[in-house]
Amino acid sequence: MEEPKGRGGDRVHGFKFLLLFFSSLFLNVFFFSYLFLSRRTHLGWSRAAAAEAELVAAISCSGHGRAYLDGILVDGLPTCECNTCYSGANCSQLLPDCSADGDSGDPLFLEPYWQQHAASSAVVFSGWHRMSYRTTGDNFISLELERHIRLLHEAVGNAVTDGRLIIFGSGSTQLLNALVYALSPENASTPASVVATAPYYALYKMQTEVFDSREYEWKGITSKWLNTSVSSMQNFIEFVTSPNNPDGFLLQSVLGGPNIIYDHAYYWPHYTAIPAPADEDVMIFTDSKLSGHASSRFGWAVIKDEKVYRKAINYMQVNTMGVSRDTQLRVLKLIKMMLAEMRGEGGIFEFGYKTIAERWSKLSKVISSSNRFSLQQLSPQYCTYFKRIRNPSPAYAWFKCEMEQDVDCSAVLSEARIISRPGTVFEASSRYARLSLIKTRDDFDLLLRRMEALVSKEDVASF
Amino acid sequence: MEEPKGRGGDRVHGFKFLLLFFSSLFLNVFFFSYLFLSRRTHLGWSRAAAAEAELVAAISCSGHGRAYLDGILVDGLPTCECNTCYSGANCSQLLPDCSADGDSGDPLFLEPYWQQHAASSAVVFSGWHRMSYRTTGDNFISLELERHIRLLHEAVGNAVTDGRLIIFGSGSTQLLNALVYALSPENASTPASVVATAPYYALYKMQTEVFDSREYEWKGITSKWLNTSVSSMQNFIEFVTSPNNPDGFLLQSVLGGPNIIYDHAYYWPHYTAIPAPADEDVMIFTDSKLSGHASSRFGWAVIKDEKVYRKAINYMQVNTMGVSRDTQLRVLKLIKMMLAEMRGEGGIFEFGYKTIAERWSKLSKVISSSNRFSLQQLSPQYCTYFKRIRNPSPAYAWFKCEMEQDVDCSAVLSEARIISRPGTVFEASSRYARLSLIKTRDDFDLLLRRMEALVSKEDVASF
Repeated sequence: MEEPKGRGGDRVHGFKFLLLFFSSLFLNVFFFSYLFLSRRTHLGWSRAAAAEAELVAAISCSGHGRAYLDGILVDGLPTCECNTCYSGANCSQLLPDCSADGDSGDPLFLEPYWQQHAASSAVVFSGWHRMSYRTTGDNFISLELERHIRLLHEAVGNAVTDGRLIIFGSGSTQLLNALVYALSPENASTPASVVATAPYYALYKMQTEVFDSREYEWKGITSKWLNTSVSSMQNFIEFVTSPNNPDGFLLQSVLGGPNIIYDHAYYWPHYTAIPAPADEDVMIFTDSKLSGHASSRFGWAVIKDEKVYRKAINYMQVNTMGVSRDTQLRVLKLIKMMLAEMRGEGGIFEFGYKTIAERWSKLSKVISSSNRFSLQQLSPQYCTYFKRIRNPSPAYAWFKCEMEQDVDCSAVLSEARIISRPGTVFEASSRYARLSLIKTRDDFDLLLRRMEALVSKEDVASF
Repeated sequence: MEEPKGRGGDRVHGFKFLLLFFSSLFLNVFFFSYLFLSRRTHLGWSRAAAAEAELVAAISCSGHGRAYLDGILVDGLPTCECNTCYSGANCSQLLPDCSADGDSGDPLFLEPYWQQHAASSAVVFSGWHRMSYRTTGDNFISLELERHIRLLHEAVGNAVTDGRLIIFGSGSTQLLNALVYALSPENASTPASVVATAPYYALYKMQTEVFDSREYEWKGITSKWLNTSVSSMQNFIEFVTSPNNPDGFLLQSVLGGPNIIYDHAYYWPHYTAIPAPADEDVMIFTDSKLSGHASSRFGWAVIKDEKVYRKAINYMQVNTMGVSRDTQLRVLKLIKMMLAEMRGEGGIFEFGYKTIAERWSKLSKVISSSNRFSLQQLSPQYCTYFKRIRNPSPAYAWFKCEMEQDVDCSAVLSEARIISRPGTVFEASSRYARLSLIKTRDDFDLLLRRMEALVSKEDVASF
């Protein structure tokens, strides 16, 4: 009696056992296939560097800082580098009396964008990557990078590059003087006169004065030279910054002479509406304000005239033998990524515009309730890139102290623990000060709190 | 009868089956553990970039070229960039009538070194790596890099850096003029006189002429100014290149004035014996000739006087706002690696010295059988780094045509399909020409073959 039963039990056990066995076999096949397939992307020489980079990136700095591969080491690991006003080993302490820093144009508002696009923006350098002076193009230029810069301008619609020549520089910084050099008339009896419309970016003047070339000299504010004769105009080099630094207005040449350098550092949809592609003879751009990598020191100029281009190339060769090829590879990767994800929510311009427009709106709201202070008047404008009317999102607030007694506006701000860049730096009145809207969220948040406090004191005082 | 047998067979089968089952279970445990353990070093955001870099590095270019991440794309993959005189999709074709190129100082002789040290020299950049203008140090300088540069000089024993200040530049190129600027006396009635001993590196003259500053001007060969009074000496800036480019001799100042720029680009054990650490007031070095990364555009100056340092820093700020931070991270990794593996067979100086000494020896042997040509006379010398007497290993052969009719030596070489840099470029006689010994093996091998052919023709002619 038991046997058949046992046999039946055996059959059930046998069946269960077979099930287990085949499950196990199935798992074997699964694991084997997984390992075999993943082997195809198994990393060799780059693995240690990748692991090191991820280890450092994972160091927690409380959201108020970050650690970098080349940071200062403590116990063998790079330390956190904290945002202004944050301190401590992991940047968790807010320094109570620290001044909000609205001074520099450090474009860290874009840092979160790149953190969100980590996988598509990383780049690995082999030890033997492109060691030679030579690159793929003439004049130390990566042809792939040049091609992608042209694609980017076309996709954004902010500059005409067809039939133009492109030159690279260590930031727009280096190109500003390279172009002044290139536009200076040869064998002229007097040095070329370099001018700009105030308020203007201080470096234009500083460069001509420090380098002190026999070919050109600083001649101050453009408007002083409105009565210059057409023949003398040949000898003028006019800087036109559009959008202007510090006030964000789209500017045109005042003199209308033959030698104009358009500094389009901020002519990107982060900072301004793009009414039409810029189409001037000499246009300068910089990655610092495009992708936010001020550190990389990478800029470019789009040049129409071949003679001007040749002279600028010669300057670049003699000054630094071109731009770091390391940086050229990194910028190529960043531009590729920006192009790939340009449209829609994932796009860098959408991200950049939203961030600054929101900051501008918050700051404007605070200042609008003040009688003592004002900001530049910017209005919504149609943008060909976004294909809609967009709100202002300037890189800087051009802040004015309206009261008679507040002659030194930067000092007024400083007393309220806000660091600004004085108007005099831009050859404007000391009643003005520039406040940066493109630094970290921490910087802006503190700036806004301090400004609220300053403006609210005004309310109390007026009662 | 059959039943027991059957049952015995069942037992055997059962046993085999169990064995299979447990083997399968064991395999599963093994696979699971393997995956679990390897997960600990599983890569996230850096993986795709690492895989891409390895894919490109694996592209075969027949040993006569290499593909780079930012190379020109064909079918979505970067194409091979071939050594001079090699052609074809994978660089396998030697162009028959191609001239051997001994012109430039492209330091590709070190490329195989970095290929052999792939894992320890790779570096991964996150998209958000150090975007800010600011770095860990003042003046846009990475403190970790500065520290490692000091460690390197100490380990090599080629320069005193204690109590000195260090400034970075985009190659030594940028620093040469920054230091001329910094050493020019302020408010002097006449421009400073910039001089160098011929044969000298052409860029010294070219820079002063292109930038054409009111503060300094080119005044030719040092020896012309030997009778300058001590008081006028204040107004002289003397370039001393040691080892000298082109001839490799260790030089000292001729004028002995207060403003001397020591260009020590080649003062590394690859190229010269190191008799003692250099200890001058202003010393310039470059990574181009140290690690071979000419592409990175990274150099540094070691400066004693703080005022000179401040002026040079100001120049750097106004010229390019410091050096690419991308490059600073990469160079840090390279120097760390060089320090870690400095001594013994794996060291870069051993590798570099052996490579060039062998090339110099081969070329010398060929030229020694010639009556028509000669090379500079270099002798073995004790080296404090290698702690032994070492043979010459100059970066360049300073080649001379001895026959009366061979007035243009570079033209003689050109006819023999050898490209050289004419002596006149160095303000020397046209009877001289510079031949580079630091390019790729392909370049040198072809140069040597062509030189053998040229010299053997001489033998035939003399019969």
